Amino acid sequence: MYKPSLLAVLLWTCISLSSFANDGYKLWLDYQPISDSQLKSQVEPLLGGVYFFGENPTYEAIRKELNLASKSMLAKAPVYTKERLQNTKLWIGTREQLSQVLSLDQQAQIKALGNDGYWRGTLELDGKSFYAIVGNQPVGVLYGVYNWLNSIQSNTFDSSTELSDSPKIKLRMLNHWDNLDRTVERGYAGFSIWDWHKLPGYVDPRYIDYARANASIGINAVSLTNVNANALILTTDFMKKVKVLADVFRPYGIKVFLTARFSAPIQLDGLKTADPLDPEVIAFWKKKTDEIYSFIPDFGGFLVKANSEGQPGPHEYGRNHAEGANMLAEALAPHNGVLIWRAFVYSHEDEVDRHMQANNEFEPLDGKFQENVIIQIKNGAIDFQPREPVHPLYGAINKTNVGMEFQITQEYLGQATQLVYLAPMWEEVLKTKIYRPTPESTVASLLEGEGTGQKLTLIAGVSNIGTDRNWTGHLFAQSNWYAFGRQAWDPSLESKQIADEWIKLTFGTNPEVLTKIEDIMLSSHEAAVDYMTPLGLHHIMGRSHHYGPGPWVMGGRADWTAPYYHNADSLGIGFDRTTEGSGALGQYAPEVAKAWSDPNQIPEKYLLWFHHVPWDFKLKNGNTLWEGIAYHYDQGVKEVRKMQETWASLESEIDPAEFDHVRQLLEVQEEEAEWWRNACLLYFKTFSKRPFPADIEQPEGDLEYYKSLQFPNAPGI
Amino acid sequence: MYKPSLLAVLLWTCISLSSFANDGYKLWLDYQPISDSQLKSQVEPLLGGVYFFGENPTYEAIRKELNLASKSMLAKAPVYTKERLQNTKLWIGTREQLSQVLSLDQQAQIKALGNDGYWRGTLELDGKSFYAIVGNQPVGVLYGVYNWLNSIQSNTFDSSTELSDSPKIKLRMLNHWDNLDRTVERGYAGFSIWDWHKLPGYVDPRYIDYARANASIGINAVSLTNVNANALILTTDFMKKVKVLADVFRPYGIKVFLTARFSAPIQLDGLKTADPLDPEVIAFWKKKTDEIYSFIPDFGGFLVKANSEGQPGPHEYGRNHAEGANMLAEALAPHNGVLIWRAFVYSHEDEVDRHMQANNEFEPLDGKFQENVIIQIKNGAIDFQPREPVHPLYGAINKTNVGMEFQITQEYLGQATQLVYLAPMWEEVLKTKIYRPTPESTVASLLEGEGTGQKLTLIAGVSNIGTDRNWTGHLFAQSNWYAFGRQAWDPSLESKQIADEWIKLTFGTNPEVLTKIEDIMLSSHEAAVDYMTPLGLHHIMGRSHHYGPGPWVMGGRADWTAPYYHNADSLGIGFDRTTEGSGALGQYAPEVAKAWSDPNQIPEKYLLWFHHVPWDFKLKNGNTLWEGIAYHYDQGVKEVRKMQETWASLESEIDPAEFDHVRQLLEVQEEEAEWWRNACLLYFKTFSKRPFPADIEQPEGDLEYYKSLQFPNAPGI
Repeated sequence: MYKPSLLAVLLWTCISLSSFANDGYKLWLDYQPISDSQLKSQVEPLLGGVYFFGENPTYEAIRKELNLASKSMLAKAPVYTKERLQNTKLWIGTREQLSQVLSLDQQAQIKALGNDGYWRGTLELDGKSFYAIVGNQPVGVLYGVYNWLNSIQSNTFDSSTELSDSPKIKLRMLNHWDNLDRTVERGYAGFSIWDWHKLPGYVDPRYIDYARANASIGINAVSLTNVNANALILTTDFMKKVKVLADVFRPYGIKVFLTARFSAPIQLDGLKTADPLDPEVIAFWKKKTDEIYSFIPDFGGFLVKANSEGQPGPHEYGRNHAEGANMLAEALAPHNGVLIWRAFVYSHEDEVDRHMQANNEFEPLDGKFQENVIIQIKNGAIDFQPREPVHPLYGAINKTNVGMEFQITQEYLGQATQLVYLAPMWEEVLKTKIYRPTPESTVASLLEGEGTGQKLTLIAGVSNIGTDRNWTGHLFAQSNWYAFGRQAWDPSLESKQIADEWIKLTFGTNPEVLTKIEDIMLSSHEAAVDYMTPLGLHHIMGRSHHYGPGPWVMGGRADWTAPYYHNADSLGIGFDRTTEGSGALGQYAPEVAKAWSDPNQIPEKYLLWFHHVPWDFKLKNGNTLWEGIAYHYDQGVKEVRKMQETWASLESEIDPAEFDHVRQLLEVQEEEAEWWRNACLLYFKTFSKRPFPADIEQPEGDLEYYKSLQFPNAPGI
Repeated sequence: MYKPSLLAVLLWTCISLSSFANDGYKLWLDYQPISDSQLKSQVEPLLGGVYFFGENPTYEAIRKELNLASKSMLAKAPVYTKERLQNTKLWIGTREQLSQVLSLDQQAQIKALGNDGYWRGTLELDGKSFYAIVGNQPVGVLYGVYNWLNSIQSNTFDSSTELSDSPKIKLRMLNHWDNLDRTVERGYAGFSIWDWHKLPGYVDPRYIDYARANASIGINAVSLTNVNANALILTTDFMKKVKVLADVFRPYGIKVFLTARFSAPIQLDGLKTADPLDPEVIAFWKKKTDEIYSFIPDFGGFLVKANSEGQPGPHEYGRNHAEGANMLAEALAPHNGVLIWRAFVYSHEDEVDRHMQANNEFEPLDGKFQENVIIQIKNGAIDFQPREPVHPLYGAINKTNVGMEFQITQEYLGQATQLVYLAPMWEEVLKTKIYRPTPESTVASLLEGEGTGQKLTLIAGVSNIGTDRNWTGHLFAQSNWYAFGRQAWDPSLESKQIADEWIKLTFGTNPEVLTKIEDIMLSSHEAAVDYMTPLGLHHIMGRSHHYGPGPWVMGGRADWTAPYYHNADSLGIGFDRTTEGSGALGQYAPEVAKAWSDPNQIPEKYLLWFHHVPWDFKLKNGNTLWEGIAYHYDQGVKEVRKMQETWASLESEIDPAEFDHVRQLLEVQEEEAEWWRNACLLYFKTFSKRPFPADIEQPEGDLEYYKSLQFPNAPGI
């Protein structure tokens, strides 16, 4: 593009680009022009006189953001002043930098917010008032600035009210399951944004926009590589590449983690063993770790998947998870690095209910892990199902640091083609009462360290980010990235409030748009559960790619088949995990175990997860179980159609490119929901031998046809 | 993005976007605002009154393009009128539709332009004058409109001069080497833009922009899939997906081809054989072909790689290429489909110089192929080397349709990170004299059918397109896509003229920018040859990924090693293809063979391709061969540094994002050029045992280090 006069640019770019579609690249940092004059009159003066107390690479990042936002929202660049009184309206700095102008009370109040917290409000000095954004550290200031800019975009900014916030979780982390060849395990938005081949020489501008997006929602750590790890990432060549990314992310307060392949000493240095107690192995990891820190002084640490699904680990050498994790933790400790060890472990050699294996392995090790180790536990014991009861390991161990692993990418929740807002599901998990270590304990309070005094806290999410221009494939999948960051910052936030924030930042503040899109988002998860796995059904997806229904999937290891989980037979359906069954319920707190052991007391959403129930079992609404299953599947399809109607009614209010993108995908979602309903009901009917309720849309199609469908090139494997 | 009033959009989008970087997505269809008032006064009235003679899906595509262009260039939508006189200024239609207003001479003149030709100029009627864009078919009109819009963008439009053009080649085709899992063989711009998983349900808007870009440069055929073919593309599921793409491309005059795996009858229908003379096999292909045409009535045909590099083919059944090709051709013939059969064949069981194998196989078959078969021949006999003498098969067969296969993707020419403008290399090939079938024959004249009367003509290019936002990874790689289309339309075009066109469309009409970027582009290919493979050296790249130097590569089949090609020893270097050597020179016309057989007569750029030459052989400039090799490698590096300086001097004239993108990549290119020079000279010195000339930058580094470099995740394999 050639460069005509600025005037020409201003005058013309608009036309050329107003005729150009919105591709969603800017995410929730769209910085729409301010149309509300009252808001404008508040914001314009502030950006007309910005004063920074001190200098800092993070302040450079703040300046870049203010420039972008101001030009976009106000059609003018911000004015930065060199002295803090004359012509100054907006103060930016840390508590220490502003100590002379902050009262002792204010200083104490701000100090209490911790490293990442911020305060923003009006300060008086010499009879003049200034708006100030203050943190204890530059990164807190950055969060404050993003929070302020978001309040402007969503038209909720009011300079007269003070506001302060601080995260309840220390590590708010994205886990990328990105392979070095740029494929992404469970990735449905194209391929890995890490262009390893062009690094370190070429820095894709996208890396900076990625950091901006994360920082704007408080994400402060990223693991770059797949937990099914490739040892090559630990070679010097790759360290040089990772260093470039770390340098880009640092001003945005983001630390880099890597996945460590437990067998790396064998693969990289040709050692005969990877035994965590072997002196050469210990020396290998110390040397590797020191080398990484020589490139990246603030390297976050390692994330490890060991002895699970074929990954190497300490068990090969007769060592347990603690011995494996602690060896790595000791290599990291001198650098204040963190070792994150995943609790997602199950073995094909273990006949025990897969649901129970993590507790069986980790409960005996409680208290045996180093201080800088965190055990990262999935929200449920199986694997990111559409709805899953909380993992029994939460509360079962309380002398060990534990962290949450959510999945943002929609492996089991519609993948690339379905609109499913995940925050309600995460909220459900976070608010679950677990009664341990204290009678009031919830998953959220445990993660925050309440009752255990845990200092090192973590909420991780498996990323849904890829090379697709809109980052997440489905425009609405952006809301899951956004919501994850917000809930990791404050697990007590409500999914409805987060949806409202995201909708305003993405589609603007038109109230009709807000209500309608909120309806779509808040109903979407329940709809997906209904047309995929209602009433506690789980893991009945297509094999390996997990795309579409596969309740008939057989062959290979038992716990990779569908019947292992649904156990449908002539009598009924469901996995008996009571004391008469696998006994998995016994791993929960007694309060939970007791309530859930009774099929008439357990919340129906979990019924078939823990009970094998007769087809004629009476549900609370009087329907038989068989009828209930049929009504749920049918209801799921109806919900999707409602989402379609609501979206269609917004055509005049939404950017045409974005509208058509979502319209097309909702059509695909409807087809896929019908496919799920038809395939599952036709299949289960072969066991129930009962008719479908007359008042549902009768499942059509041929079960054999559904069984015959193959997806050899399904993405994300 | 919410939708404020149009005014707000116009007023504000410009600001928000003027502060946003140009990511290169719009290619050469950027439609910059017209700043030249004189040009504007010509164009504005025409777009103020557009009349279409008749209706047609292609006219819909033209309207879309005019809307986009007019809004972008003039800040207003075009005005379409319903009657052809009042308020009308611009007439658009076919010769037949305009027959009443065209003189018989004009009609005859236009008719002579053929299906794809167009005429544009001023017509007088009832004392009024109208500007008209006329073709024999709607697609010709489309080409005329794109040509007119390009003339406006490059400020060369003059309504007072008539202009007509028509392609000299019938099939102007892109070959995508895209796999169904979205990896791209020899792809360096991300991954395949064909999102098979989301098709047919989701139509990516990118498909339409792809069609626009191709149509704008006259490309009218695309093969969607890798020549190393996957039979799955021929299943009904995939046909439904391909149909959607064909429907998108049709209004833009683009036909879809697919690659056919010769063993598909075995893989898809479980036949025991794929013997082309087996009745069941013949029936399989007829049925498959008929089925494809039931979805895509204007399906182009098949592209086949057989019995080469392990691909299945007729040889397994004792049949020859003609028998294999004709069987498929007969299945296509009833639908007017075309069968394209690649001449790139060589076998590891064949000890003969790989350079000779295609001629050995195809010369005896000349005249034995069906009328709807085209033999697609690479520009050279080895494999898309930085510089390669013309393939001896050109002119050796003249009773068979032949087509050209160029490679746009830079497999051996810098891949993703180097700026190499390829048109000069293609021009060199097209203008090469081959003396057969007539003494005046050149590659271009043969491809146009001169001397053979060949009707079905083809120039194909292996695509460099991927999911990268700018389509081609390197911004300047867009120029190779553009140049390929232009040279396929008219093989006599000069690469300098094409560069000028592209520069104006991409960077604007500033003369300083034009000259400087033209310098960079026109020197880039010779520079790459110098620092990679000067004086006729070839195939000394890294194994399999072909990234970087690998003159030492040994092991496996001989013709996949580097020494097979350079033959360096204590006496000299080069591949003896004279009668004393492999005799490959004998496959050329006597005029060529004679001249090139003498190391003192052969153009030095081909010297080591055909001769094994002593290190002290005297070059024309008096240097010894060893000195000459050293000077060429050194010169290549110096040329890249000159490109860097020239680019740096343009900083104030180029969009910042685009400037920095190219600046970074030129730095990488400099490092890679030094790497090539150092590695190759250090390696060859171990044979020549001679010092480097004192006045070159002395190659530094350790040969063992260069040999040790591994690129396990290099793209494009």
